[in-house]
Amino acid sequence: MALCSVFLNLHLLLFVCLTKEALGVAKPSVASYLSQEILAEQEADRVHGLPGQPPVKFKQYAGYITVNETHGRALFYWFFEATHKPEQKPVLLWLNGGPGCSSIGYGEAEELGPFFPQDSSTPKLKLNPYSWNNAANLLFLESPVGVGFSYTNTSSDISELGDTNTAKDSHTFIIKWFRRFPQFRSHKFYISGESYAGHYVPQLSELIFDNNRNPAEKDYINFKGFLIGNALLDDETDQKGMIDYAWDHAVISDGVYNNITTICNFSLPILNQTNECNVELNKYFAVYKIIDMYSLYTPRCFSNSNSSSTRKEALQSFSKIDGWHRKPAGYDPCASDYTEVYLNRPEVQKALHANVTKIPYPWTHCSDNITFWNDSPQSMLPVIKKLIAGGVRIWVYSGDTDGRIPVTSTRYTLRKLGLGIVEDWTPWYTSKQVGGWSIAYDGLTFVTIRGAGHQVPTFTPRQALQLVRHFLANKKLPSQPI
Amino acid sequence: MALCSVFLNLHLLLFVCLTKEALGVAKPSVASYLSQEILAEQEADRVHGLPGQPPVKFKQYAGYITVNETHGRALFYWFFEATHKPEQKPVLLWLNGGPGCSSIGYGEAEELGPFFPQDSSTPKLKLNPYSWNNAANLLFLESPVGVGFSYTNTSSDISELGDTNTAKDSHTFIIKWFRRFPQFRSHKFYISGESYAGHYVPQLSELIFDNNRNPAEKDYINFKGFLIGNALLDDETDQKGMIDYAWDHAVISDGVYNNITTICNFSLPILNQTNECNVELNKYFAVYKIIDMYSLYTPRCFSNSNSSSTRKEALQSFSKIDGWHRKPAGYDPCASDYTEVYLNRPEVQKALHANVTKIPYPWTHCSDNITFWNDSPQSMLPVIKKLIAGGVRIWVYSGDTDGRIPVTSTRYTLRKLGLGIVEDWTPWYTSKQVGGWSIAYDGLTFVTIRGAGHQVPTFTPRQALQLVRHFLANKKLPSQPI
Repeated sequence: MALCSVFLNLHLLLFVCLTKEALGVAKPSVASYLSQEILAEQEADRVHGLPGQPPVKFKQYAGYITVNETHGRALFYWFFEATHKPEQKPVLLWLNGGPGCSSIGYGEAEELGPFFPQDSSTPKLKLNPYSWNNAANLLFLESPVGVGFSYTNTSSDISELGDTNTAKDSHTFIIKWFRRFPQFRSHKFYISGESYAGHYVPQLSELIFDNNRNPAEKDYINFKGFLIGNALLDDETDQKGMIDYAWDHAVISDGVYNNITTICNFSLPILNQTNECNVELNKYFAVYKIIDMYSLYTPRCFSNSNSSSTRKEALQSFSKIDGWHRKPAGYDPCASDYTEVYLNRPEVQKALHANVTKIPYPWTHCSDNITFWNDSPQSMLPVIKKLIAGGVRIWVYSGDTDGRIPVTSTRYTLRKLGLGIVEDWTPWYTSKQVGGWSIAYDGLTFVTIRGAGHQVPTFTPRQALQLVRHFLANKKLPSQPI
Repeated sequence: MALCSVFLNLHLLLFVCLTKEALGVAKPSVASYLSQEILAEQEADRVHGLPGQPPVKFKQYAGYITVNETHGRALFYWFFEATHKPEQKPVLLWLNGGPGCSSIGYGEAEELGPFFPQDSSTPKLKLNPYSWNNAANLLFLESPVGVGFSYTNTSSDISELGDTNTAKDSHTFIIKWFRRFPQFRSHKFYISGESYAGHYVPQLSELIFDNNRNPAEKDYINFKGFLIGNALLDDETDQKGMIDYAWDHAVISDGVYNNITTICNFSLPILNQTNECNVELNKYFAVYKIIDMYSLYTPRCFSNSNSSSTRKEALQSFSKIDGWHRKPAGYDPCASDYTEVYLNRPEVQKALHANVTKIPYPWTHCSDNITFWNDSPQSMLPVIKKLIAGGVRIWVYSGDTDGRIPVTSTRYTLRKLGLGIVEDWTPWYTSKQVGGWSIAYDGLTFVTIRGAGHQVPTFTPRQALQLVRHFLANKKLPSQPI
């Protein structure tokens, strides 16, 4: 099934960069009304310091929430209270995608979390000054089971994974997480994520939304909205946008472009494409074996490490001097190697209360165990329409130098929604420089981030923190130099 | 004439980044067969050291060649012998464009010359380790008269400028320059340039080519080929490519894009566009008042200097700390300010033998005096076809993050040539990283440079030096990691 293999390729490529996490509500200090049992549970998850960690003033918690007792399915989370006044801050869940990729591997350790593992023979973490826990109480979840430290004791669960049960388990996680951290229950709750989390986030949002409308439901969640970036939203437009973007950005030949646009029909389901189309698509994918599909203008990592990173095909001698185009903010294309080494250290796992069941494979950014995905709707637009109608705040953003789910794709996708324009294409500013553009639709805001790859907070950390602050405050980004 | 103003805009925008220089031939040391008169002329032009210049081992010359005695038209040049074995190296002329921009201001001082002026209260030059005089004897020409230090004593000359007389004067310059430096006459001679030099370079090449075929002509020039980057070549495709690129790179709205592509007809001469089209084009141009059209992902300069740089509208407080996205190779968006200050210093002008006639206006990157341009063919493709047929080596390159003459434009343009493909779209490498792609047509080679703006050597100096070395050697760029 050649076409099928292409679709697998799409997902396997996604494995390079995604993560996710579940929801939560938490208060700064342990409130007096909390029971001894709750206090003990929280204290058991309290992380008192990680190997190589710089000192911080905020609290952090990590551990497991069992989402299915019978099967022994448990999801791993890592939660950071906000750096200042956590009692006044919302709770923000971050989810990476894949499907099959870890939100602590990407989101926490390389994008928007407080701690970035460093290249060092001893465990070493660098504090990220643009961590999103400057803006919110920040929760990362490894989901579904089989991803990172999340596990199941029923191996058949792994072969039954898909969007539906991922959303259900994540929903169960959130409910139970709020039970464990009831001091955050009244806080406003938001969900964020990138890439394949363009599926996870709306799907999870819909479950919470529906549950909240059930008056019999006791686990009300104060859910307000979601923020998704470089998000897989609609197969047809996402794929059309990818191909157009690759030609426009001069990474594929006229011939490959013309053949794909002539032969392939992306309005058909992916599995119904012809073999001829797949042959051409494979030529397209070949380009991204030599440059970083997720960030067109940055270098790839060539390291000597023994990392089993999904970028391992690139392992060659790496010179620090040869940091061609390395970003001044400190972007290091080998960051994933450092993360993988760090999270596989037994002392780190112990400090995080992770891997308590001795999972029989190492921690990886993206699961090597998940090889089948049961259900993946062709479009998220119906769910998004429903949630817009329900008054959920929705912001979509796009780092505009990502080739995987490029800005062209997202623009084509949003055009399909047919929403009215409240404020058309407007620049927004970080200091005196343009951060990108935004367009306010009736019910949805779209923001581009200039010069950012797929993992926007990695490439433009300052702009990303500004973005999330404005999203949480429901405030328009500044349209003049500041 | 609204449409005309749009075209003027196109050119005025180009004023931001172009330069040019004329041809020459020179040998390392003064050969014994040179007459005393020649030796004296050369010695008069010898630059023995510039204010703030680091020590170098190669020789440099600067001064004037009078191209029309009657009118008193004189063109300013700056010539650098190659760093090693200049007696074995070809002579390479570099021309910036505009029309009206200086090859010493852009090409020498900010792109590919040996000396880059620095931000300093005293004159200070930094040696560019990637200077193209590592590969060739390197000649920069300020052309036509009215540009930089080049002048005319007949003011009406300025209002009669255009492509034709620019090429003629440049041709006269080259012939006379080789007479002044006859020790380089036998060397292979190449022309390079960028932007509007996409007109100058083929036009000058054609004059040399035609002159060389005239058996009565004594001033034979050993002309072998040319190299042009982000070059204005064909009005129709250049403009179509600009608009497509702006949408694909998420800098204009769907509305502006759709209006321009619906209303404007770029197959018509520019002056025949409708006012409706111009209204939309002006919306498009407005984007590039806030980001750098010539390098989409780098910051603009916000400086406190009193520079009359064409970027002066951006003058605001500038913090070194706020170097968002500044390139590690040392790219400084305010480099043009430093150049302008440096070249207006009387002691610098004296050392360069420049401004000997006390030109009544300061040196600027792009001329404020040239406000009319007499002739500018809609397409350079007929000339290029002729020179291909004549066996001239032609390489075209494109920095792929330039919005002014973007890679999309050049791809559309080259497609129009209808050449056969000898080797289709192939990556080329700088070390282990992909430098871009190349395609060998029958008679023309096209090379893209990944992540480089309009002034390719400014943004990717190492890649640019590699490119010119391979061009001069007529050698395919490496298609495997090196």
